[in-house]
Amino acid sequence: MAESKRLSLEVIEALATEVLLKHGFSADQAGAIAENVTVAERDGCVSHGLFRIPFYVRTLKSPASNPVAVPTLRVTDSSVVHVDSHGGFCPLSLRIGEPALLEKARKHGIAALAIHQAINIAALWPEVERLAESGLVVFAFTAANAYVAPAGGIKPIYGTNPMAFGFPRKGSPPLVFDQASSASARGEIQLHLREGKPLPEGWAIDKDGNPTTDPAAALEGAQLPFGGHKGASLALMVELLAGALIGDAFSVEASANDTHGAGISPGGELILAIDPSHCSGSTDHLARSEYLFQEILNQPGTRLPSQRRYKVRQQHIAEGVDVSLAMLNELEQLKNDIV
Amino acid sequence: MAESKRLSLEVIEALATEVLLKHGFSADQAGAIAENVTVAERDGCVSHGLFRIPFYVRTLKSPASNPVAVPTLRVTDSSVVHVDSHGGFCPLSLRIGEPALLEKARKHGIAALAIHQAINIAALWPEVERLAESGLVVFAFTAANAYVAPAGGIKPIYGTNPMAFGFPRKGSPPLVFDQASSASARGEIQLHLREGKPLPEGWAIDKDGNPTTDPAAALEGAQLPFGGHKGASLALMVELLAGALIGDAFSVEASANDTHGAGISPGGELILAIDPSHCSGSTDHLARSEYLFQEILNQPGTRLPSQRRYKVRQQHIAEGVDVSLAMLNELEQLKNDIV
Repeated sequence: MAESKRLSLEVIEALATEVLLKHGFSADQAGAIAENVTVAERDGCVSHGLFRIPFYVRTLKSPASNPVAVPTLRVTDSSVVHVDSHGGFCPLSLRIGEPALLEKARKHGIAALAIHQAINIAALWPEVERLAESGLVVFAFTAANAYVAPAGGIKPIYGTNPMAFGFPRKGSPPLVFDQASSASARGEIQLHLREGKPLPEGWAIDKDGNPTTDPAAALEGAQLPFGGHKGASLALMVELLAGALIGDAFSVEASANDTHGAGISPGGELILAIDPSHCSGSTDHLARSEYLFQEILNQPGTRLPSQRRYKVRQQHIAEGVDVSLAMLNELEQLKNDIV
Repeated sequence: MAESKRLSLEVIEALATEVLLKHGFSADQAGAIAENVTVAERDGCVSHGLFRIPFYVRTLKSPASNPVAVPTLRVTDSSVVHVDSHGGFCPLSLRIGEPALLEKARKHGIAALAIHQAINIAALWPEVERLAESGLVVFAFTAANAYVAPAGGIKPIYGTNPMAFGFPRKGSPPLVFDQASSASARGEIQLHLREGKPLPEGWAIDKDGNPTTDPAAALEGAQLPFGGHKGASLALMVELLAGALIGDAFSVEASANDTHGAGISPGGELILAIDPSHCSGSTDHLARSEYLFQEILNQPGTRLPSQRRYKVRQQHIAEGVDVSLAMLNELEQLKNDIV
């Protein structure tokens, strides 16, 4: 086990905020990012926790990344509301857009939030969970950095292109899943490389299109969608929604635009939200879904998406989170960097 | 090759209509079903073509299936419109609901159509294509008959639960995919059984939960989702949307309700539609998506979803469709049945 130090969620949030402020993020941008990072640590989602702070700082290499951006909300008669992020970061844009989306969805039954030109290196489940916690059925889609080959092809076109979904529950946090349309996350391949371990079959091809379990060859080649051509269709759908539909960057463009070593460039996120009270008539959608969940959980070996995460959450809220000393050292150094 | 006869699409539609009328379907129900069946034959989608007519007739074994149902449209201030099918068949409910959905989506930017208590044994791509042809970005979801095990479980809970998606194109028919969340269609397993061929790995488990390539054991056991737990998440999402959200039947209930050997019982379909003019601002979403499609098609070996179907369509419109004599005999017999 790596040596670690147990920190409360408050300390984690303060640490993340401090590093970001030191690097020139505005209080609003830093606060929203730090909250998101803390929520990830709380749920044991390490790859989106403090681990991401150095990536946020690294994006500042690009002039397209704006740590003091003030997102602007555009609300019209339409049920599609927009947030222009101006090269700022997704968490703050969400804070500004979510209340407007919620209001539109409640009024009209279904609404959408398009986030434009945001740097999004966070998971989608936090916003999906928040909106589902408010009683909405929610979808979210985003695309960034071309890593995944199209069906039949060998060169990266799609991002790992996650699609997230949330459904409210009575007396429990919502059912949420947030899954890449690639067979694995990019970070999992990097982790295999670092640890000198071969990849599972089906994750990647080398630059000539041959299946590979060598992480280095995979990083030079392309990742594969999950489930063959069906996963590739989902990856394409995410490009069309978060790219073409809302007028934002495709993954191939995000990669091409990343000319400063920032690791990512601004892009879009699309969220759809449905108010069940407009849909289910006299039936109780919450009671109905609990019936289905029980049918599933009656079978040994099953669990619902997000169940494991919520269990970790309870433990971390009660006991704090073990953060590796290596991670803390890296953040300490970032704090002391001369900016 | 089975012996067959070449028929024009007009003859196919007339034949389908005649059989349905003979069995007591109203002119409206029969006309909508026959049109849908003909559209499937036109595109080479044999399993949803004339092949389905005997299934439509067989549903009449159940008192819940109503061949003369008059669907009712409910439109309010909400952007969610409803069609109550009253045990009638999905194609007619769609004819009635689609114009209302289109109007709401154009006005508000995003809208939904919930179809209730319909017998849906058709594909989803025809309605998705029609709506995308009108310029909308479209999703469709439906669930029926429990065949697929949940992640970690061994007993059927989910239907094959398709999700379809459509995106308009300029100068070509829309990009459309319509894919089951199961690894294979039910019919493909039945086909392997009939032909005495083993199933590919990963399609199914036997009733004890062991992986099987024996089609008979698979039909007694459970089908598997595509892509492991990620496909299972999509299957669950479809249940929640077409079941809990719109107050309609889950797949386990559809199976339990099928007590008359009808093969299916009434359930729901949910369609979401987005008007790109509310989303993409000053950018041309159609030009943007063509750019992405070209990036994909520049790679040898790739094709877009629905491309193959559209190619077959051109040929069938020009030359007619070869229908097997066995199929024609079966329809002839159905026509002569004493009802």
